[in-house]
Amino acid sequence: MIPEGFLFSAMNAGVKGADSMKLDLGLVFCTQPTVSAAVFTRNAIKAAPVIIGTEIIQKGSVRVILANSGNANACTGQRGIEDARSLMAAVANCLGLKYTEVFPLSTGVIGVRMPIERMLDKIPALVRNLADNLAGFANSIMTTDTFPKVATRKVGKAKVLGIAKGAGMIAPNMATTLAVVLTDAQLVQTQLNEIINESVIETFNAITVDGDTSTNDTLVALSSCMVKAEPKEVRRAIREVMHELALMVVKDGEGATKLVNVRVEGAPSDGEACKVAMSVAKSLLVKTALFGEDPNWGRIMCAIGYSGVAIDPDCITIKISGLPVVEQGQEALCFNEQKVHEALNACEITIEIGLGNGIGSFQAWTTDISYKYVEINASYRT
Amino acid sequence: MIPEGFLFSAMNAGVKGADSMKLDLGLVFCTQPTVSAAVFTRNAIKAAPVIIGTEIIQKGSVRVILANSGNANACTGQRGIEDARSLMAAVANCLGLKYTEVFPLSTGVIGVRMPIERMLDKIPALVRNLADNLAGFANSIMTTDTFPKVATRKVGKAKVLGIAKGAGMIAPNMATTLAVVLTDAQLVQTQLNEIINESVIETFNAITVDGDTSTNDTLVALSSCMVKAEPKEVRRAIREVMHELALMVVKDGEGATKLVNVRVEGAPSDGEACKVAMSVAKSLLVKTALFGEDPNWGRIMCAIGYSGVAIDPDCITIKISGLPVVEQGQEALCFNEQKVHEALNACEITIEIGLGNGIGSFQAWTTDISYKYVEINASYRT
Repeated sequence: MIPEGFLFSAMNAGVKGADSMKLDLGLVFCTQPTVSAAVFTRNAIKAAPVIIGTEIIQKGSVRVILANSGNANACTGQRGIEDARSLMAAVANCLGLKYTEVFPLSTGVIGVRMPIERMLDKIPALVRNLADNLAGFANSIMTTDTFPKVATRKVGKAKVLGIAKGAGMIAPNMATTLAVVLTDAQLVQTQLNEIINESVIETFNAITVDGDTSTNDTLVALSSCMVKAEPKEVRRAIREVMHELALMVVKDGEGATKLVNVRVEGAPSDGEACKVAMSVAKSLLVKTALFGEDPNWGRIMCAIGYSGVAIDPDCITIKISGLPVVEQGQEALCFNEQKVHEALNACEITIEIGLGNGIGSFQAWTTDISYKYVEINASYRT
Repeated sequence: MIPEGFLFSAMNAGVKGADSMKLDLGLVFCTQPTVSAAVFTRNAIKAAPVIIGTEIIQKGSVRVILANSGNANACTGQRGIEDARSLMAAVANCLGLKYTEVFPLSTGVIGVRMPIERMLDKIPALVRNLADNLAGFANSIMTTDTFPKVATRKVGKAKVLGIAKGAGMIAPNMATTLAVVLTDAQLVQTQLNEIINESVIETFNAITVDGDTSTNDTLVALSSCMVKAEPKEVRRAIREVMHELALMVVKDGEGATKLVNVRVEGAPSDGEACKVAMSVAKSLLVKTALFGEDPNWGRIMCAIGYSGVAIDPDCITIKISGLPVVEQGQEALCFNEQKVHEALNACEITIEIGLGNGIGSFQAWTTDISYKYVEINASYRT
C-alpha cells in the first residue's frame, strides 16, 4: 500500500535518552520531484522545525521528510534552528540534494537541546537503509502513542498513505500532532494545497482532547505524481485518510474511555456550527459527565450558550445517541434519564445538537476525561 | 459589620428536595430606597432570574434580594419566568412593595422546575423573620460550597459587606457564582455602576476553575446611601471585598490543592495581558502539572503561545514563585529543576510572566486540577 516513488527508513539515535533503544529518527524519501503542501500550528510560539518548515514548503521542492521523536526542538533559540539545519544538511549531503529539499518534523520535550552529535552519527545509516520500512517510520515518530497510526486508500491505480502521531493528552509536553500524507496521484501544487487546507478543517481541526495547541503541530503532504487519477476521487481519498488518522489520535488519548461525536446542525453557518461543536467538545464539565455516564444535559446547554455564537435557546434540541434529551430549549417530554444513562455506557457516543437557525453544520470528535488523564499528566516526569 | 438599613432572613423550603433540612431560601431587605447595580453572565443561555434581573436592575428601584439554592431555574421556559415572578410578587405583597422592587437570584440544578408551592408557603415567614441573620443568608445561597463566603470593609463610618456563593468546579451543574455587595455609603447610581463594572474585571472575571461560564452568574450591589463617605475610598473598599470573595470561590474549588496567582507584565495592553493570563490559568496541561508539582515550563510557554496575543517568543521571561525558569524564551541559565519542584510543593504559587512588549499587566487566579475534581464531577448525580 506504499505509493509509487516513496522509500522509508528508521533508526534509534538515542534522542529519548542515550540508553533508550526506541526508534526516534525517521526518513521518507521520494525518488521523484514532488508536489508538496503543509499546514502548521497556529501557536505563536513555534518550534524550530515549524519555523524552518514554513520556509521550506514555500520553495516547493521537498524530496525528503526527516522526523524525530523525543525532542520537540522548541524554545531552543537560534541554536535550535542551527541544529535542525545541520541535520537537514547531513541528509541532503548523503542523497546529493540541497538542504532546502529536506522538510523537518520534531516532537517531544520542549526547551531541551537535541543530542545533535548522536543524531548526526546515524544519518548515513538512516539514508543507506531507505527501503519499504513504513512500519519503522510510523513507529519512529511516536512519543507516548500506544499504537502507530497508518491509513490508506486506493483511487484506481493511485494510492494515498497517511501516517500520524499524537497520543491525545499525554504527549511529553502537550498533544503534538504530526501527520504525513503521501500519494502518487498526479496533482498540481494548487490542488494539493487546497485539498490539505480544506480537509484539515473537518479532520485534525475538528478533534480535541484537552484543547491545548502545540508548538510543533504539522501536517505535510507530498505527491510523486507518478500515477494518473481523477482529482475529485483523490481529494476524497486524502480527506478520508486524514479523517481516519484524526480519529486514531482521539482514540489514543490515554485515559480516554469513550469516543464522542458532537454533531451540530441548524447553525447560521458552518463556521458557527464549528464554534458550538468545539465549545461542547472542549467543556471539562461535559467531559467529566461523559466519564461518569451522567445524562446531565444542562452542561451541554451551558457550553452551547458560552460558545460565542448568537443562539435562540428556545430553538435548541439535543439528542444523546439518538435519544431525545432537550426540545425547544427544555427537557424533552419523553426524556428518560435511565435510558440515556444506559446509552452513555457505550464506548462510542453521539451528541446531536440542533440550533434551528440555519443550515450550517459541523462534526467534532472528543473524548471523556478520566482519573487516568490527571494521573498521566500530573506525574509525567516523576 | 452590617451596613445601615439592611435586614436578612433565611429559611428551609425544601428546594433541595422535600426531605432536605438545609437553608435554601434567603432574603435581603433594605429599609430605604437604594442605589443599585448588577452584572450578569455572558452566557447566551440565561436562567429565568438573569432574564428578569436584567429588567429589574434597569428600573433602578431594588429594595429586596430574593435568593434560592438547589434549583437554577434555567432552561425552564416561560413557566420558569412565571415561577420567579410569582415568588417575587409574594415577597413584594408581604412587604407592601411592587414586584419590580424584588431582585431574584437562583443557583442549582438546570432544567428542573422549582418546587414553587413549597417555596410560596415559606415566603410570609421569611419576611416575618427579617433581622440581622446575615449568617443564615450566606448559608442559604450555598450549593456544594464547603464554607459560607463573607467579606467586609469599613470606610470611616460607612460599611461594605459582600456575600458570595461558588464552589469552583463542583456546583450542581456548573460553577455558578452569585455575589451580593451591600453598603450604606452615599453613592449615585453612575458611581456604583462604574465601581462594579470596573472591579469585576480584576476580581470575578480574573478567576477560573474550569473555564465554564454558568447560565446564572450574577453580581448585584445595593447601597442604602445612609452614611457619608469618600467615594474614592468606597470604591477601593468595594473592590477589596469583591477581590476577597473571588479568591474564596477559587479556594473552595473542590479537588483543588493549590491557589495559583498568574501575573502577566509587559503586554501591549492590560486586555492582552488578561488574555495571556487566562490562557495559562485555564490550560488543563498547566493545571495538571501544578497538581503533579512538575516544573514543566514548556506547558506555560505553549499556553502563552496560543492565547491569541501577538508575542515575541524571544522576549518571554517566566518565574515560578520567584525562581527564574525562562529567560529570552529559553530555559533560564540558573534554572534549578529541583528547587522549582520544591517551590511547587507549597499551597500558594505564583507564576510571573514577562512579555517584554509594553506596560500592560493583569493578574489571574486559578487552581490545580486533581483526581478529586474528576471524581466529583463524574459522579455528581450518582
